[in-house]
Amino acid sequence: MESFVFYNPTKIIFGERAINMLAGELKTCGNNVLLAYGKGSIKKEGIYDAVVKILSDCGKNVTEFSGIMPNPTLAKVRDGIDLCRNNNIDFILAVGGGSVIDCCKAVAVGSVSDGDVWEELFVNKTAAQKAITLGAILTMVGTGSEMNSNAVITNEEQKIKCGCGHKAFFPRFSILDPTYTYTLPQYQMVSGICDVMSHIMEQYFSGTDDNVSDELSEALIKSVVKNAIIAAKCPQDYTARSNIMWSAALALNGLLNRGKTQDWEAHQIEHQIGAYYDVAHGMGLAAITASYCRHIYKSGLHKFRQYAVNVWNVETENKTDEQIALDGIACMEAFFKEIGATTSLRELGIPDTSKLGEIAYSCNLLTGGYKTLTHEDVKTILEASF
Amino acid sequence: MESFVFYNPTKIIFGERAINMLAGELKTCGNNVLLAYGKGSIKKEGIYDAVVKILSDCGKNVTEFSGIMPNPTLAKVRDGIDLCRNNNIDFILAVGGGSVIDCCKAVAVGSVSDGDVWEELFVNKTAAQKAITLGAILTMVGTGSEMNSNAVITNEEQKIKCGCGHKAFFPRFSILDPTYTYTLPQYQMVSGICDVMSHIMEQYFSGTDDNVSDELSEALIKSVVKNAIIAAKCPQDYTARSNIMWSAALALNGLLNRGKTQDWEAHQIEHQIGAYYDVAHGMGLAAITASYCRHIYKSGLHKFRQYAVNVWNVETENKTDEQIALDGIACMEAFFKEIGATTSLRELGIPDTSKLGEIAYSCNLLTGGYKTLTHEDVKTILEASF
Repeated sequence: MESFVFYNPTKIIFGERAINMLAGELKTCGNNVLLAYGKGSIKKEGIYDAVVKILSDCGKNVTEFSGIMPNPTLAKVRDGIDLCRNNNIDFILAVGGGSVIDCCKAVAVGSVSDGDVWEELFVNKTAAQKAITLGAILTMVGTGSEMNSNAVITNEEQKIKCGCGHKAFFPRFSILDPTYTYTLPQYQMVSGICDVMSHIMEQYFSGTDDNVSDELSEALIKSVVKNAIIAAKCPQDYTARSNIMWSAALALNGLLNRGKTQDWEAHQIEHQIGAYYDVAHGMGLAAITASYCRHIYKSGLHKFRQYAVNVWNVETENKTDEQIALDGIACMEAFFKEIGATTSLRELGIPDTSKLGEIAYSCNLLTGGYKTLTHEDVKTILEASF
Repeated sequence: MESFVFYNPTKIIFGERAINMLAGELKTCGNNVLLAYGKGSIKKEGIYDAVVKILSDCGKNVTEFSGIMPNPTLAKVRDGIDLCRNNNIDFILAVGGGSVIDCCKAVAVGSVSDGDVWEELFVNKTAAQKAITLGAILTMVGTGSEMNSNAVITNEEQKIKCGCGHKAFFPRFSILDPTYTYTLPQYQMVSGICDVMSHIMEQYFSGTDDNVSDELSEALIKSVVKNAIIAAKCPQDYTARSNIMWSAALALNGLLNRGKTQDWEAHQIEHQIGAYYDVAHGMGLAAITASYCRHIYKSGLHKFRQYAVNVWNVETENKTDEQIALDGIACMEAFFKEIGATTSLRELGIPDTSKLGEIAYSCNLLTGGYKTLTHEDVKTILEASF
């Protein structure tokens, strides 16, 4: 096991009506609140009204920051920074999914930095370890942003989607109410589940096989699979939603990657698909993951075999290790289909293969996985995913 | 899944020579340091010299607080409080195992409280949420105190061993170097491993079976078992020691008991054995756990069956659920024997059964497990454990 530091101070408040604990948390937060959200779905569900009432009852001065888009842009971050500075904001409340939270993380640090937020956070990584305090109310599942110190922001002018980790990005608290996910469109929920599965696998398929992280990763995947099948059939199954919501946070809160290398190449490929086509991130991952695994599995055969047996209960009798590994990948693909995920680029809505080469050659190549890809490898994977 | 709050701000610094990061942590800690440790084993291993040199290089004023015993006493806590007050201590560095850290937690809160430490922390639970900052350097494995907000203190006058959870008990940081456990006496290391196993099982064998905690608990047990067998044979296997050390922290840091009830009856029984006989806590647990499980398994048959299959790979063909469950318990007992744990009260050094009734009737009875025991049940379990 490699040396590591684990630090995660975010307080998770979890359960039905967890929002009832918001007022208590607000007591130690600032009075000038930036209330941040997306395109208004929280208004349909009554969440907005509930939050506004609590903020009002607590005597907070509220400035609204609305319209945060999926894949939040640097321009939107700059808007948020202006709002914070012009209204002496000393607490940010992000209500939404990963995009809203990510945007607010960049706003929280950018507002108290002297320099330019893009340069300091995403280019030179010199931003000071200070930020406006951030709290989150999570309304969808997948990114894990509610319990980590990462944010992904898109610089539209430079056509770069860029991630950043920063210690001051940890939300002070995040409120997770599984019932908030009941009314999510099925497509969005399934996309989130595929994202969670991919987060775990990016950390699992890499490094040496001597880390308790392997057992924990298998445990989380098994739980997500079991509960996703239930949630896909019965969207209002509280237990299934609870397990998925909590597993999503654990999948990317630093628990699974302590003391080991990680892959993240599938995410790199999906990010470039997203740069060319407007696709749901998790669905993009589901579309390429099986082809990605089939392309690299021989370089990590032992681990793909272990995955097949421990996660998917693949029978081993009279089979080669290769066959066992491939059967495991097939089980994963069948699971994606069962819950309604898109398992090809065609299903994802990509009309033809004309841009796959361009996408492949624009892709960032990492070295943490079992096989370091070439751009030609990526092209092969994309074609196999079509 | 029941509603829950998860909060754990302790920073874990893990790996060989992790102590090299101590100076960096000390920069934001107070200058008047209470250096706390046990009966001097840290002096044999060179840890003491290394720590004292770092403190000196950082310009700290050091007050020593030594001789902290296993099962630390209230009297010792009062000694520490006096030292803190008389020397304006503003940072406590605990170097040792769970006993040293537990004692320092009580000292850290007690020193800044106006009232009596026993009354405020352990009786009325009215101690304010403030404490002298605490850091820890862990030298043995088992209690999990390095990454949680619990402490157990023994009030010798009242003959009460009492646990307490308090938010200000979280260490700010804990340094975990697996090589520090190389030279632990085998008996102590095995005892710690049995304690870890019990911590996981106390949280696993309870509640409803719908929580990702079950999969995570099984994952941790499997990892501990695999690595304990290696560590028992090769004490200097770094990978095995690393996994055990990290798993021990995860086993009791709040991860496994979110949203579910817990048992902890085996710990209650062992505590009373400890009140009558001087036994190693983990070994006491190993001595009674199989009998405890055999006494209650029919009340949680589904879970004991699941444990047998998922953790111990018990074959199920042509067996009743009862037989499968009992086979799982037998596997656990065989594991305890394999690593050199004591699996009976006799082996533990208890000379005869004369006091077992008295121990049983002094035992605290909890309601979180599959079967709420009577004192007569406890007596039966103790007799079966002899």
